[in-house]
Amino acid sequence: MKQFKIVILLFTLYTASVKSQHLEDYKLWLKYGRIESKTVLQSYADLVSQVYFPADNEVLENAKNELSTALPNMLGKPVAFSKNLAESTLIIDRYDQLPNALQKLIKEDVDNLNDEGYVIKTVAYNDKNISLVSAKTNIGILYGTFRLLNLMQMNEDLAGVSLADSPKIDLRMLNHWDNLDRSIERGYAGFSLWNWQKLPEYIDQRYIDYARANASVGINATVLTNVNANALVLTPMYLEKVEALAKVFRGYGIKVYLTARFSAPIEIGNLKTADPLNEEVQKWWSNKAKEIYARIPDFGGFLVKANSEGQPGPQKYGRNHVDGANMMATALKPFGGNVIWRAFVYSEHDDTDRAKQAYDEFLPYDGKFKDNVVVQVKNGAIDFQPREPFHPLFGALKETPIAMEFQITQEYLGFSTHLVFLPKLFIEVLEADTYQKGPGSTVAKVVDGSLYNNAISAMAGVSNIGNDLNWTGHPFAQANWYGFGRLAWNPYLSADEIAEEWLRTTYSNDKNFIEPIKEMMLTSREAVVNYMNPLGLHHIFDTGHHYGPGPWVDNLSRPDWNPIYYHKADENGIGFDRTDTGSNATEQYAPFLEKKFNDPATTPEMFLLWFHHLPWDYKLKSGNSLWDGIALKYQKGVDQVSTMIATWENAKPFLTVHEYEEVKMLLQIQLKEAKWWRNACLLYFQTFSKRPLPKGVEQPNKSLEEYRSLKFPFAPGIRPQWN
Amino acid sequence: MKQFKIVILLFTLYTASVKSQHLEDYKLWLKYGRIESKTVLQSYADLVSQVYFPADNEVLENAKNELSTALPNMLGKPVAFSKNLAESTLIIDRYDQLPNALQKLIKEDVDNLNDEGYVIKTVAYNDKNISLVSAKTNIGILYGTFRLLNLMQMNEDLAGVSLADSPKIDLRMLNHWDNLDRSIERGYAGFSLWNWQKLPEYIDQRYIDYARANASVGINATVLTNVNANALVLTPMYLEKVEALAKVFRGYGIKVYLTARFSAPIEIGNLKTADPLNEEVQKWWSNKAKEIYARIPDFGGFLVKANSEGQPGPQKYGRNHVDGANMMATALKPFGGNVIWRAFVYSEHDDTDRAKQAYDEFLPYDGKFKDNVVVQVKNGAIDFQPREPFHPLFGALKETPIAMEFQITQEYLGFSTHLVFLPKLFIEVLEADTYQKGPGSTVAKVVDGSLYNNAISAMAGVSNIGNDLNWTGHPFAQANWYGFGRLAWNPYLSADEIAEEWLRTTYSNDKNFIEPIKEMMLTSREAVVNYMNPLGLHHIFDTGHHYGPGPWVDNLSRPDWNPIYYHKADENGIGFDRTDTGSNATEQYAPFLEKKFNDPATTPEMFLLWFHHLPWDYKLKSGNSLWDGIALKYQKGVDQVSTMIATWENAKPFLTVHEYEEVKMLLQIQLKEAKWWRNACLLYFQTFSKRPLPKGVEQPNKSLEEYRSLKFPFAPGIRPQWN
Repeated sequence: MKQFKIVILLFTLYTASVKSQHLEDYKLWLKYGRIESKTVLQSYADLVSQVYFPADNEVLENAKNELSTALPNMLGKPVAFSKNLAESTLIIDRYDQLPNALQKLIKEDVDNLNDEGYVIKTVAYNDKNISLVSAKTNIGILYGTFRLLNLMQMNEDLAGVSLADSPKIDLRMLNHWDNLDRSIERGYAGFSLWNWQKLPEYIDQRYIDYARANASVGINATVLTNVNANALVLTPMYLEKVEALAKVFRGYGIKVYLTARFSAPIEIGNLKTADPLNEEVQKWWSNKAKEIYARIPDFGGFLVKANSEGQPGPQKYGRNHVDGANMMATALKPFGGNVIWRAFVYSEHDDTDRAKQAYDEFLPYDGKFKDNVVVQVKNGAIDFQPREPFHPLFGALKETPIAMEFQITQEYLGFSTHLVFLPKLFIEVLEADTYQKGPGSTVAKVVDGSLYNNAISAMAGVSNIGNDLNWTGHPFAQANWYGFGRLAWNPYLSADEIAEEWLRTTYSNDKNFIEPIKEMMLTSREAVVNYMNPLGLHHIFDTGHHYGPGPWVDNLSRPDWNPIYYHKADENGIGFDRTDTGSNATEQYAPFLEKKFNDPATTPEMFLLWFHHLPWDYKLKSGNSLWDGIALKYQKGVDQVSTMIATWENAKPFLTVHEYEEVKMLLQIQLKEAKWWRNACLLYFQTFSKRPLPKGVEQPNKSLEEYRSLKFPFAPGIRPQWN
Repeated sequence: MKQFKIVILLFTLYTASVKSQHLEDYKLWLKYGRIESKTVLQSYADLVSQVYFPADNEVLENAKNELSTALPNMLGKPVAFSKNLAESTLIIDRYDQLPNALQKLIKEDVDNLNDEGYVIKTVAYNDKNISLVSAKTNIGILYGTFRLLNLMQMNEDLAGVSLADSPKIDLRMLNHWDNLDRSIERGYAGFSLWNWQKLPEYIDQRYIDYARANASVGINATVLTNVNANALVLTPMYLEKVEALAKVFRGYGIKVYLTARFSAPIEIGNLKTADPLNEEVQKWWSNKAKEIYARIPDFGGFLVKANSEGQPGPQKYGRNHVDGANMMATALKPFGGNVIWRAFVYSEHDDTDRAKQAYDEFLPYDGKFKDNVVVQVKNGAIDFQPREPFHPLFGALKETPIAMEFQITQEYLGFSTHLVFLPKLFIEVLEADTYQKGPGSTVAKVVDGSLYNNAISAMAGVSNIGNDLNWTGHPFAQANWYGFGRLAWNPYLSADEIAEEWLRTTYSNDKNFIEPIKEMMLTSREAVVNYMNPLGLHHIFDTGHHYGPGPWVDNLSRPDWNPIYYHKADENGIGFDRTDTGSNATEQYAPFLEKKFNDPATTPEMFLLWFHHLPWDYKLKSGNSLWDGIALKYQKGVDQVSTMIATWENAKPFLTVHEYEEVKMLLQIQLKEAKWWRNACLLYFQTFSKRPLPKGVEQPNKSLEEYRSLKFPFAPGIRPQWN
């Protein structure tokens, strides 16, 4: 009967293509489409004509299962698995299980792998060439299998392949800002995947497919809950549900972390205090850790946002971040768990430039944290803006493992309606040179731990995943999930490589499609910077939801929540003076950079107004005045979106009706909103500059008052009650 | 290139079956699976060997498009459309377009149709038998096309078919309790389909598929927003988005309605009052209607919840429901719109039995509403309980069109985790005899307008649809959406027919599958009554979320929100005395029923404790004491769920892995929760009855205190802020 169902399915989808095309979006970069080229098809058919793949545990079964699903899709016939190693053309097995003769052929490669790495290699064995996927561990085999399938999806030549790859970062982690009511703070792709109501019994297929997608790019840790945490997730009712998720993810090498609300001992433990030096509190956390590990032996640990934006923390008790983090670290240590302690702190009682506060507060703690504490720092010192200079804590913290926190969800980058390829942003930060240990001290080297030989390395991405059918709202936002994973595995990859991999596995291997669309992706991030925050402008978003422009906002209780705090536009000019004549945030960088950033002439123009308050007629490198330059950048951003639309229209022949229409509709919204940004910001800044728009900049079609009057009380992703 | 993509798709799905099976859930009862029987296949191939289907407008194009999608799936080859009517084997066209000779053959059938009806008939024409689908209107053609495809999915013999069908109810309406933040009050299938943020530009394929599903069962109206409405939906920003949805739905014969917050003139109109007799207020609503109709010429009208559970309404200004409804009706009248005014009212300032209040309040208004007002009444006088006697307003309101309001979403029936086939509940109500115009005055005849010849007839269902991949959370909850639509079309259908249609189009035509699973569906509603609210018990749910039992709850501010108000258990007995010795709610029924309900001996036992407070040792018809009878019913409910599980396990050979596992996991939750209900309620009531559990009833494995201590602050569907 099951056989029969498959035949029915075959015909069901034969022509229902238009009405079902959008279901394909669900499959992400794991579509495993039929190989189009006959020669490639033949070479792959030869490669897998007999497959030896013993699978005696869950991780290996999942890897084998992936192969069993993917190969028939790509090749059009079932996989011939064999128990006879000697006769097989493809051998997938752990190194310690291979016959000596085979071990010898890859010993050198395997010796250079770390525990999660793999080898994919053509070797001569028993007088014929065979392909081998091997690794030291089960998870290495899973990663190797996904990589093999990835290469096949890209039609790579596998005859003579010799590839050895290991992740360069230990913890490759998604941070879900998901609340227990399934709303997602800064979520723009629907609501939380975690259906707490139906857990632990009901295992949604989505949990499995989420794990597959993560494993396919090497993500090995997930924080299920919002950093603005609710302590209830640490109660038995929820831990039972977390346990069920952890069980699914374990088979794909993914460890579960939870956010820990610092005041949990009071809220769910009936204690009167959460003072980290109080013995009862310490005992409570130790017992809680024990309780969690009894359910989830490979539990990852806690992610903590403490004394930040109103969250509880050790400072309430006169203690500091070290006291708080080390207390939790002590509780987790016996079980091998980590504390990820966020450095996103700034105080309403401190009128220091907000950009300086995290550095000022955390640098003195360097070297004082226990060895299972990682300090997690956002890529920039403000808050996930379209562009920021790298956070000065990178390279400055030398004795403390420091995790990079990127935001994959597009809080400040057009939500899920703007096509923005974020690896360009991530790589710009990773490639930045901190100069903290001389030239070449890049952020990437800090993050992968190589610069200071840190014991733990970590990269976290704030997830853009929700329960939208296509997971990420915008189909191209899938590329940001993919790209984050790839960079967490290897922070030295290029944006070009990542875009190409994603396009080939998601859409097509046709060069005539890939080249223009890749170009569109690679320019998309500069476009959004241009039409939102050019030349170093930042945080001029509307209040709360951060949807659309709000450079005029000046009424929020905390000065450093107001856009006017950040752009400081007045009749004389615009920009935040962070040099030695201003807030002196530049002093937090290495001397070489400090000097460079202190002088507008040597400051990269992309950071100009981040570091300097400059007159409207300041002369840019182009020869334009600052005012004209700002206006032209805004216009350029809009024009770039128009170009993206034209590029997409040209790609129509390579796309299904749905693929084409879906992105086209979204690009129309992006164009509308790019114009909104340009018009609103220019009209507002013009009230200070009192200069006309330069030639080539379109005249706004609405008044400043109209833009100022727009209200969006139900924009998605607004931060809900924190408790 | 598009051709090529289809081929790829074909292979993609060939073997990816297990990993993609759950995507099939999305397709609802419109799967159009391949016809298995060779003889049926051949007869259908003959039937459609040449199809004449001119389509010169959007509705007809959608019908034709459905045929173009469905037939190739079912038959394995493309549809041969022809412009030559004379040579065609299947002719689909409006009656007024047919040649005279064909018109004559179906004139009598067509004469008996109403505007939305259709004919499907085999006729002899040009010396051969051909099949004809015809109707007076485009929408009739759409319905006829869906019905033809439905019959084919069920492998019905179509040689010699002669079928004429018209809907018996005018407004067949879904009520979405969807909020603008996409949360859904009482929603258990994810979040709102309406992605307001991306509207109007982005048209999600789901909107189209939602419309297709509705049209396929004849639903022709949808209220997009929650009855606890936010006035913002009536502002231009949202009306532009509503307009985009209305455009999609128009092509499927579905009119859009909105909920109107009575205080909107104050909140969005800057008026100081919402007094319905105030001229400015009247003018505001008239202008609002004009504004809406300029965008949506076929806008349906307003659904209003006024002076109910804290909602604003005319009483605030010393006016009544007639004043309020007629004021809005006047505004909508010039454009053909309706006001649907809900009668779900009860007051915290009135200590009359809550079950009596809507009748008391609305009966005096009978005949006073304008002719475009419909009063919408819940099926029972309390609130969508697993079982209630029909609402006494049915049959009592004689001069006023009265809409039936059913709840498809399972607020009090196990959320989307319990398999409960609701048409059994709906039909029990529809078949009930009100006796208001003598015997045979059934609720169905009231609702379809035939009893009192009302000008408008309407049935509304509170939607169970959300953005879960399978739309309704539980795959069997799709049957409740389907069944509601079928009953709104024809309130005299049997539950058996509806279950069979749904099973055949959703799962399989195999009798060995259908018979046991249909039986499971048909008993499922009695099971939930047994394990939650047997023998007329009602509203003993936990507070707010209504998840699980809370018979002990006695601390809510309004007496009539507390379960103890409803069961009135004490040492003497249990039940609500609504006879002439009690609240005398029985007097609201026709004399025959009043008499019947006043005497426990003649009251159907399913309503026993609804109408009577009886001693624990009251003797039931079975000979058992009331206490034993209650306990045995709870046990029976649990046993029925166990039987459902066994039935489902036996059906495994007919199901895909996913289809089987998904329902099995959900049934496990249902069994767990059925036991929870049984244990918690019996332990609690036992504190009054002070009697042992009878033989055959399982002993609870937890204490009453444990059950009482359970808290679910994040249970789904909790009513959010009302503003």
